Amino acid sequence: MTDDQHVIGIDFGTLSGRAVVVRASDGEELGSAQYEYPHAVMDRELAETGERLPPDWALQDPQDYIEVLRHAVPEAVQAAGVDPESIVGIATDFTSCTIMPTTRDGTPLCQLDEFRERPHAYAKLWKHHAAQPQADRVTEVAAERDESWLSRYGGRISSEWAVPKVLQLLEEEPELYERADRLIEAVDWIVWRLCGEEVRSACPAGYKAMFQDGRYPAKNYFAALDIRLENLVEEKFASSLAELGSRAGSLTDEAAEWTGLKAGIAVAVGNVDAHVTAPAAVATEPGRMVLIMGTSTCHVMVADEVVEVPGMCGVVKGGVVAGRWGYEAGQTGVGDIFAWFVDQAVPPYYQEQAKERGLGIHEYLTALADEQRVGEHGLVALDWWNGNRSILVDHNLRGVIVGLSLATRPEEIYRALIESTAFGTRRILEAFDDAGVAVNELVAAGGLLDNPVLMQIYSDVVNRPLGVLDSPEGPALGSAIHAAVAAGVHEDVETAAARMGRLRPDVYSPDPGHVEAYDRLYQVYQRLHDYFGRDSRDVMGELQSIAANARGGERDER
Amino acid sequence: MTDDQHVIGIDFGTLSGRAVVVRASDGEELGSAQYEYPHAVMDRELAETGERLPPDWALQDPQDYIEVLRHAVPEAVQAAGVDPESIVGIATDFTSCTIMPTTRDGTPLCQLDEFRERPHAYAKLWKHHAAQPQADRVTEVAAERDESWLSRYGGRISSEWAVPKVLQLLEEEPELYERADRLIEAVDWIVWRLCGEEVRSACPAGYKAMFQDGRYPAKNYFAALDIRLENLVEEKFASSLAELGSRAGSLTDEAAEWTGLKAGIAVAVGNVDAHVTAPAAVATEPGRMVLIMGTSTCHVMVADEVVEVPGMCGVVKGGVVAGRWGYEAGQTGVGDIFAWFVDQAVPPYYQEQAKERGLGIHEYLTALADEQRVGEHGLVALDWWNGNRSILVDHNLRGVIVGLSLATRPEEIYRALIESTAFGTRRILEAFDDAGVAVNELVAAGGLLDNPVLMQIYSDVVNRPLGVLDSPEGPALGSAIHAAVAAGVHEDVETAAARMGRLRPDVYSPDPGHVEAYDRLYQVYQRLHDYFGRDSRDVMGELQSIAANARGGERDER
Repeated sequence: MTDDQHVIGIDFGTLSGRAVVVRASDGEELGSAQYEYPHAVMDRELAETGERLPPDWALQDPQDYIEVLRHAVPEAVQAAGVDPESIVGIATDFTSCTIMPTTRDGTPLCQLDEFRERPHAYAKLWKHHAAQPQADRVTEVAAERDESWLSRYGGRISSEWAVPKVLQLLEEEPELYERADRLIEAVDWIVWRLCGEEVRSACPAGYKAMFQDGRYPAKNYFAALDIRLENLVEEKFASSLAELGSRAGSLTDEAAEWTGLKAGIAVAVGNVDAHVTAPAAVATEPGRMVLIMGTSTCHVMVADEVVEVPGMCGVVKGGVVAGRWGYEAGQTGVGDIFAWFVDQAVPPYYQEQAKERGLGIHEYLTALADEQRVGEHGLVALDWWNGNRSILVDHNLRGVIVGLSLATRPEEIYRALIESTAFGTRRILEAFDDAGVAVNELVAAGGLLDNPVLMQIYSDVVNRPLGVLDSPEGPALGSAIHAAVAAGVHEDVETAAARMGRLRPDVYSPDPGHVEAYDRLYQVYQRLHDYFGRDSRDVMGELQSIAANARGGERDER
Repeated sequence: MTDDQHVIGIDFGTLSGRAVVVRASDGEELGSAQYEYPHAVMDRELAETGERLPPDWALQDPQDYIEVLRHAVPEAVQAAGVDPESIVGIATDFTSCTIMPTTRDGTPLCQLDEFRERPHAYAKLWKHHAAQPQADRVTEVAAERDESWLSRYGGRISSEWAVPKVLQLLEEEPELYERADRLIEAVDWIVWRLCGEEVRSACPAGYKAMFQDGRYPAKNYFAALDIRLENLVEEKFASSLAELGSRAGSLTDEAAEWTGLKAGIAVAVGNVDAHVTAPAAVATEPGRMVLIMGTSTCHVMVADEVVEVPGMCGVVKGGVVAGRWGYEAGQTGVGDIFAWFVDQAVPPYYQEQAKERGLGIHEYLTALADEQRVGEHGLVALDWWNGNRSILVDHNLRGVIVGLSLATRPEEIYRALIESTAFGTRRILEAFDDAGVAVNELVAAGGLLDNPVLMQIYSDVVNRPLGVLDSPEGPALGSAIHAAVAAGVHEDVETAAARMGRLRPDVYSPDPGHVEAYDRLYQVYQRLHDYFGRDSRDVMGELQSIAANARGGERDER
């Protein structure tokens, strides 16, 4: 290992790809570049034809991913001011499950002239939610058959995941399903483009395609879903998966030309954006949980044992670090709730005051919220504006605010909403604790990091120290760590994370004066959580049913 | 009775007095005038000294009431274009309990030079809320002694009423209490000023001073409150009360000079503004309830029997119409909640859109709310922003919104808030029904009448026809009706109401297509009402306790 070895991590996000050049010895970020996808997210119409897409669709054009390789990588190298020859490895992470149909050689069906006008030929982005009926069936059939893997996903398969999307393709465009020699995660596809070999990663397969205990679900499960799916795995998935941190292959001449890098350098097995953030935050040992906090929050942690944590999104062997169990949990609405509040419920006076002070509206409300004493607002909210994944697994649950008075001010509701998401996190930590998986420490990553008042509230509510991932490029840095391991610079991901990760521990510590008041407020949250989420879950169900009736539509009975 | 007989009703409100000249035969309103109190409400400082008043105080200067007689009455007569000689009677109604200390001849203590700087020498306006500790004691002592009259008030005495205010005076300014020969409701005082005789009305005494079954509470009750109060009734109240609609006396020369009216005409016994609205709405027969809907809602109805309706504000023999029982119930926040929402929770875009369309923000939100189908918003709210009087009698209860999602829009919450107040009314009607007092029909009065969408929602929710009081001068018209009876133009208030009242019946009828959906939503409201208001009332109590702790103050343990 020398100081002049560098690696590149590329994070493929929802709207753009971001490449970062990192020094392999210590993780120093030397330069980065971003490239926005020309087609962005196609959720209203298909760019090729202008055809209107149905509700809840979200497609991407995989050529955009290649454009990221061609633009962001050379620009990042230039920004870093390093010799391209010094770059010894490259790795990628992606949104997931983003999945596409391709030919046997990896050509996306949408790149064939005959299919360019067919929406199902494109990549279905993670937030393509049109496969909800299929997802419900995937869960139901698994529950009926008592499939052992179902509990590894908290008992419910999301419409965002692979099999529901594949089932939708089959049902709506059987011809395209037939023509798809491969159905492949975008991250595995980009690795294929980089190194010329189809090497699939254990991470998305485990979290998004029910790969557990060394295999996908059995043939007869798929046959029970739809007889035409019986041979899905054998025909269109991959027979084996590669461990995280391993080398998928070597950069091809074609990919070297795209990127301006040297052919033959190491290409790492791909990763999922949330999970790859763990090594960037040095959360590769049990007990340290990473919270990737943005519009929603994703909780990732490794442990040596496998247990069932209620409502978890998934527990996957080798899903975060090879050889260990990787746990994922989730809160379906966090930053989204604050954004909703600011857009839908903050009066003009506050907007004007913020402007006058040169503050963003979130900053202004946060400053006002910070002046309040814990619980002074008399409010408690349930953070279910977008349903609840962990620990209740019910997407029909909805938000609640309790304690409103004629004296209640917007900054008080804003604070109660922040607190509600912190209570939601605490509820998840308790579920882990109760299941025997201790969470000792939190590391925050993602956009909400910028709000120190929010971070302090989290630390107070969960009564644990809170570190931060000290890089705006968490996922790309995590990928760079994998690149360094794949290139042989470091022995394994744990070692590389320790050297290259960017954890600032204990940035926030619980304020003992706040912990007690939050304990009391949390007891109220807990009671309402159980009332609306368990004992009287039918209250929300009834409201949704009434609403569905009013709209003249069908109620999702879940 | 001839068509050239006229009467005057004067409604003394919170900020102004309003006089209306009415034709005695048919109630035609011929002219009106308003006069704003020069001192308005003194809730921050005493005008005389600039002294800062404690929180929750609200005082008035009774000289302002005289100014109403001097300005509004002659102006109304002039506006009506009638000969002052044609005016045969005058009557008044007032906010209540608005109470003041006076000398034996009715001079308010605040008009004596020696007391002009003493806040306790002024009239305490109905919304003076600083006597809450005293109100709590008034209730507690009554409950301990099992006073029979307590159940006539739903088990709780409000801080707005007479005895708590008197007790506060005694405790804080015993010298002034001693010097007060009389402690008198403003409406009885203004009648005294008009006719020169202290004739007290059965209405405020019954609803605000616990006069039941022919007497005030017993001496030993008052002694138990404070030994110095033992002789309160004998020394400072009146020994007998006059029936509504009766003649208190004849207009004095002095009052004739103030008003420009003829000396010697009939002066009617005074009334309370809410209750006097009933005859204006022709609600003098059992089964027809008047809703006076403004910042809060007051429900008034007469019946032949006396029963205990949970949470009612009061049931008083002769309190609305002589000889019958008058029921009053209340919702503590209605228009106030909508105003809160508009001030605190509507974003700039809506304000701009309203402006662009030349609409008020309430009008604009209402128009948007009207486009929604029943229950489409998936929301239900509890209308407790200002506590709950009927039927739960708990001022520590607070507002709740259930069912919020990332797609929830302000007009949906606005509609849910309107509905929550309609559900609150339905709950009250059911309490009357359950107690055996049937409510067949509603008549709406007050400021919220202007919103036909709201009115239709009420009709749909309560599944009853909804009439309206077809006059903006409801209370003043009600007073004019009493003036006509006192002058002998009509035999009694019922007859006068039938001739002079302004009821437009059945303006709104329940839409059968809405009734069913509202039945379902109401079941949800009902469940949450009982959860937060009964079975788990301690949830709100705990939130208030946490808030009080945070503020470093004492919690009101009620």
